[in-house]
Amino acid sequence: MTTHEANFTTEEYRQRIAKTRRAMAARGLGAIVVSDPSNMSWLSGYDGWSFYVHQGVILTLEGDPVWWGRAMDSVGARRTVFMESDDNLRGYDDTFVQNPDKHPMQELALLLTELGLETARIGVEMDNYYYSAAAHAALIAGLPGAQIVDSTALVNWQRAVKSPQELTYMRRAARIVEAMHSRILDLAEPGLRKNDLIAEIYATGIRGADGYWGDYPAIVPMAPSGLDATAPHLTWDDRPMKTGEATFFEIAGAHRRYQCPQSRTLFLGNVPQKYRDAEAAVLDAIEAGLEQAKPGNQAQDIANAFNATLNKAGFEKDSRCGYAIGISYPPDWGERTISFRRGDTTVLEPGMTFHFMPALWLDDGGLEITEPILITETGCECFCTTPRELWVKA
Amino acid sequence: MTTHEANFTTEEYRQRIAKTRRAMAARGLGAIVVSDPSNMSWLSGYDGWSFYVHQGVILTLEGDPVWWGRAMDSVGARRTVFMESDDNLRGYDDTFVQNPDKHPMQELALLLTELGLETARIGVEMDNYYYSAAAHAALIAGLPGAQIVDSTALVNWQRAVKSPQELTYMRRAARIVEAMHSRILDLAEPGLRKNDLIAEIYATGIRGADGYWGDYPAIVPMAPSGLDATAPHLTWDDRPMKTGEATFFEIAGAHRRYQCPQSRTLFLGNVPQKYRDAEAAVLDAIEAGLEQAKPGNQAQDIANAFNATLNKAGFEKDSRCGYAIGISYPPDWGERTISFRRGDTTVLEPGMTFHFMPALWLDDGGLEITEPILITETGCECFCTTPRELWVKA
Repeated sequence: MTTHEANFTTEEYRQRIAKTRRAMAARGLGAIVVSDPSNMSWLSGYDGWSFYVHQGVILTLEGDPVWWGRAMDSVGARRTVFMESDDNLRGYDDTFVQNPDKHPMQELALLLTELGLETARIGVEMDNYYYSAAAHAALIAGLPGAQIVDSTALVNWQRAVKSPQELTYMRRAARIVEAMHSRILDLAEPGLRKNDLIAEIYATGIRGADGYWGDYPAIVPMAPSGLDATAPHLTWDDRPMKTGEATFFEIAGAHRRYQCPQSRTLFLGNVPQKYRDAEAAVLDAIEAGLEQAKPGNQAQDIANAFNATLNKAGFEKDSRCGYAIGISYPPDWGERTISFRRGDTTVLEPGMTFHFMPALWLDDGGLEITEPILITETGCECFCTTPRELWVKA
Repeated sequence: MTTHEANFTTEEYRQRIAKTRRAMAARGLGAIVVSDPSNMSWLSGYDGWSFYVHQGVILTLEGDPVWWGRAMDSVGARRTVFMESDDNLRGYDDTFVQNPDKHPMQELALLLTELGLETARIGVEMDNYYYSAAAHAALIAGLPGAQIVDSTALVNWQRAVKSPQELTYMRRAARIVEAMHSRILDLAEPGLRKNDLIAEIYATGIRGADGYWGDYPAIVPMAPSGLDATAPHLTWDDRPMKTGEATFFEIAGAHRRYQCPQSRTLFLGNVPQKYRDAEAAVLDAIEAGLEQAKPGNQAQDIANAFNATLNKAGFEKDSRCGYAIGISYPPDWGERTISFRRGDTTVLEPGMTFHFMPALWLDDGGLEITEPILITETGCECFCTTPRELWVKA
């Protein structure tokens, strides 16, 4: 149990587990080992910055999940998970930490054996940051009689449709990212050192909004200017903002690990016509995309409408223009399931949440005007009220 | 080349590469694929928050390294790496991103084949966050004639002894973490919401110190109070600080990705005797450990001296009490090589840098008083001048 107030009721965790078990049964899995911190949290409530060591949540077909990790972190697990019994918290000895002579997965193999899973069909998240090639090799070696199969994203897919309580947290995160953008617009001016602006963005986000505290975003604020903004993922330094340059702000508000990303672009000085043209094209294309964001349509319908409109205006974007969002930990605030791109035929359902992310990178700068959205019963709702336009300070 | 000023001279990158190649040759490796963002940066200069997709730096026995990643990130690579030729930047199509139907490592296998490595002995970082089990499986499938072997931490070990320029950056980061602690001491008081304090810690760290800008720390600030501080890795919420509680601050200053972590503990109100006893024991044990921190001694000598002194005072710590530090990216600011613990026989050398991290977790709180240190020609130097004591605000 948490020290403060649990993020979700035990009943909600049990619903999530039941849903996950149906997906496990459909794939003939007797157990899954979940290494993705967002999946661990979604299934058990566990919340801590301990994902730099090997850890996981084990879910079998009955009973509560078992948290497994470094022994010192079992104390943090005790304070955050919904499971009441200490039998569901299993820590390994500290000598296994970053020690080339032995691997924590040897311990996990013993634990899975103790749980009667030595000949089970067990799903692991083979394409997750926190499940390394060495972890997989050690687990297989330790469980020669088990069938270890790939279940990457099995739990992520169960997370796609959000519960009312999850949406409450995402709406709070939306208020926070609005406050962050508002602060940017107040402060940004020629001569301001970029790191000083980032400091304010961070501080605003963590202070929170509407009385709700801000959690850490799963990605640091990105705010490149000018030519640096032709690249999507550069972070800051101390060069001052300059007249005649565009800066995009790709940031997220966060509350109780739920993320609400939103990007805006600010031009200092007189806007060149090509930025106005790009703005007009992107705004039209966003409208076209949002019209397709409704239950029954496919994820690719949004991308296709967006791209067709953009192309008609003479612009192109060859990367995906959106992805599912929700609870997340570094290094990614996406859910790593649904993408808005051609070929993604996922059918949209009410309660799904996305970052509609139609960024354009031009030859001398970037233009990002993006919207976090919720699929409703009849269409979609934008989480934020941030003015949708290219911002200009002359 | 970078837009601003390169973090290191090309000559320094070439020295690093030569050193790495000697280690490769000693292990019979014709090439390595480096997935750890800190290793990628150390070998090539690449710096961007793109490690949430598969990417790497390929180093063979001759020529410049090759940066490989998502096509859109090659623009950021162009702006940060030392390599001048675009042939050394290789991007893959966006449809490979988070797409269960195909894997970017299929593309890497083609590239390695193009580089003449289809039958080479190639080292990969099997136990790294950014080299997943699925990545390994796809790479092996794509290179059936190659011998793919584990070279986890091969590059990390080359980083152990820091160059003068690296030490310059770590000293700047040290000034930054000092400023962060000073700000904490100024602001912390009963009633202050924890997230408001974290906001100030972040802002102070990113504004920087001594005229040098702050980069993002590889771990978020941790500042748990009271019983939450019995667990090492819980993050914040909005509960106010309270009289009668200890709070530890495990934070890092960062400059150009170099990290200088340091922890301190603050007690609000009258300090119970057991905290004073723990403080006295830890301070003595730190002195005993620092005396062993000198060239020629082994890493375990520090741990053994620390633990013996601590035990004599009636306290115990069963986890490692330090680790190598330097350049880093989330989720860990350690170098994942040397640990201060029994059995680590690494011989200390001048220029090695560590976080001497003698944290104690008591039954009702935590006590962390830690020192980032540099091994010198004759002993060691503490990077920071932060007063080494349990802080108290009555």
